[in-house]
Amino acid sequence: MAAHLRKLDFKHGCIELIHGSGGCASHQLFSELFLPEFTNPNLALAHDSAVLSLPPGRVVLATDAHVVSPLFFPGGDIGCLAVNGTVNDLAMSGARPLYLTASFILEAGFALAELRLIVRSMAECARRAGVSIVAGDTKVVEQGKGDGVFISTTGLGVVADGIHIDPSRIQVGDRILVSGPLGDHGIAVLSQREHLDFVAEVVSDCAPLHELVAAMLQVAPALHCLRDPTRGGLATVLNELAQQSQLGMEIEEAAIPLQMPVRAACELLGLDPLYLASEGRLVAFFAPDLTPVLLETMHQHPLGRQAVCIGTVTDVRPGSVALLTAFGGRRLLPWLAGDPLPRIC
Amino acid sequence: MAAHLRKLDFKHGCIELIHGSGGCASHQLFSELFLPEFTNPNLALAHDSAVLSLPPGRVVLATDAHVVSPLFFPGGDIGCLAVNGTVNDLAMSGARPLYLTASFILEAGFALAELRLIVRSMAECARRAGVSIVAGDTKVVEQGKGDGVFISTTGLGVVADGIHIDPSRIQVGDRILVSGPLGDHGIAVLSQREHLDFVAEVVSDCAPLHELVAAMLQVAPALHCLRDPTRGGLATVLNELAQQSQLGMEIEEAAIPLQMPVRAACELLGLDPLYLASEGRLVAFFAPDLTPVLLETMHQHPLGRQAVCIGTVTDVRPGSVALLTAFGGRRLLPWLAGDPLPRIC
Repeated sequence: MAAHLRKLDFKHGCIELIHGSGGCASHQLFSELFLPEFTNPNLALAHDSAVLSLPPGRVVLATDAHVVSPLFFPGGDIGCLAVNGTVNDLAMSGARPLYLTASFILEAGFALAELRLIVRSMAECARRAGVSIVAGDTKVVEQGKGDGVFISTTGLGVVADGIHIDPSRIQVGDRILVSGPLGDHGIAVLSQREHLDFVAEVVSDCAPLHELVAAMLQVAPALHCLRDPTRGGLATVLNELAQQSQLGMEIEEAAIPLQMPVRAACELLGLDPLYLASEGRLVAFFAPDLTPVLLETMHQHPLGRQAVCIGTVTDVRPGSVALLTAFGGRRLLPWLAGDPLPRIC
Repeated sequence: MAAHLRKLDFKHGCIELIHGSGGCASHQLFSELFLPEFTNPNLALAHDSAVLSLPPGRVVLATDAHVVSPLFFPGGDIGCLAVNGTVNDLAMSGARPLYLTASFILEAGFALAELRLIVRSMAECARRAGVSIVAGDTKVVEQGKGDGVFISTTGLGVVADGIHIDPSRIQVGDRILVSGPLGDHGIAVLSQREHLDFVAEVVSDCAPLHELVAAMLQVAPALHCLRDPTRGGLATVLNELAQQSQLGMEIEEAAIPLQMPVRAACELLGLDPLYLASEGRLVAFFAPDLTPVLLETMHQHPLGRQAVCIGTVTDVRPGSVALLTAFGGRRLLPWLAGDPLPRIC
């Protein structure tokens, strides 16, 4: 096909409407960019769908749209977010992530060089997470009808028998743990977007959590619930789960791990770190007797080194979240009402 | 949660950035719009991923991004395209479609009334196709950074044992069949976009093909390959499969079914109907002895009533497609080089 087409110009070339036509320009984009980077037998078949081989266990699906702005930020880009975000959604159900699909909505005029950086980042993150990108789609919209690139990913994973991670299993007395400092991703994106040089040292925590989760489940298969505090942050996760479980949650402000530059940026900018997004952290709920073995296991994993218990599930004020302040006070931690940082993921 | 929030105003309300925050406005959109329309036990759990029950067979995944413009057109809208498009991708591998995920990228300022129409259309199409929408995500971008709504859908289906629909099974001598008139969808969208009143009678053929495919496979499980001629049309499907199979394809111009208004619009507008998108048609490849039973079965199905054989697979000029013209000539049917109708799906 398309013997007359010049090779894609990854130095100066741009996405054009024709790359979304389904014709030879679309095929060129597939064969010169997506296929070599995402290489795997399923994608190479270039059929409309991919046939998968699956280990025993329960199959789970998760999906996410990614519209982060800017596309590149300290510690990551939209490509690694798109892969790790969906890998983590699967991991939060206790699943081993296996396959991803990716669909791209590109704006005409977007530089091929940037697109290649993003695609390479996705490929690298997929390799690290042990998932194959088995099917995809690309559409192009006119300049001014999109914003560079949007990426939707859907992930399929398998939960081993005996593992039941579910909000309905949260119980009174459960301990609440976070795997590390919160809000790095939110501040990293904000600092890039607003050119805040004084917080330049904060890099996104974007990372795949499935190995940490696998290690936790190996020592504590009876774990009750996991959730990653992305958009809306820790406060949103706790409010969602308090509402779903109709139990109360009580957390200690002083116990919540925050990096110094994140804390400083929040104070300066009037942001509450409990509502800031992380992209490589998790919140776990489990019976108190599991605390020592879980913390010991997590502390041995690079992504759980700073894991710490921050609170307890109670039967006080079902459906709400209380914060025990550093000054000995107690206040409700409400749902996020505004949007301090739009397009954070 | 959010006791202080007024109910969504589906008459005058608009999407705002805050609906993408992950906080209470996001939850309101989920609980007052998506959940009631897409209602099913998986979605009601509101976990980050959905646990599925699957019948025996091979699991397949397919994904599509949808950016059609305008969002509403004669015979359909972006919602039915998003469901049927992915249902059909699964059906083209011989799979029974079971589950869908949907991710929405909304532009701030988009009318909630229109969003509800689209979501209802998706829910109705999902019911008709027998699939559950089990997981989703919604992001919001600023006005001028999107175009109303983009929808990415991913579908999971299961292929029964004994069915092997695959481009690699296409053989010399295979007959090529189309299930009905081509290009209705392309002309319907174009007529709406360009206000071409003279083609107002053409409505999109958008429809789910899985039942037609199931009926075909029941009488002809040895079918070789299926493909739906969407973006890029019949000519693109044939060129893709000719290239993949490294065989020749020969089709008869006079045999290709076209509705009169589509033919007329193409002549007037200088469009080649062989490159126009259909969204409820399929192309099938099979051994010649299956022709009578396949045609008889298809003619009994509402979506296959006008099914007809249009050509044959050959060993002449491997990788290319020849058109035997109505005047007795013979010319190569090239890959789509331009994009006559951007944003058709």
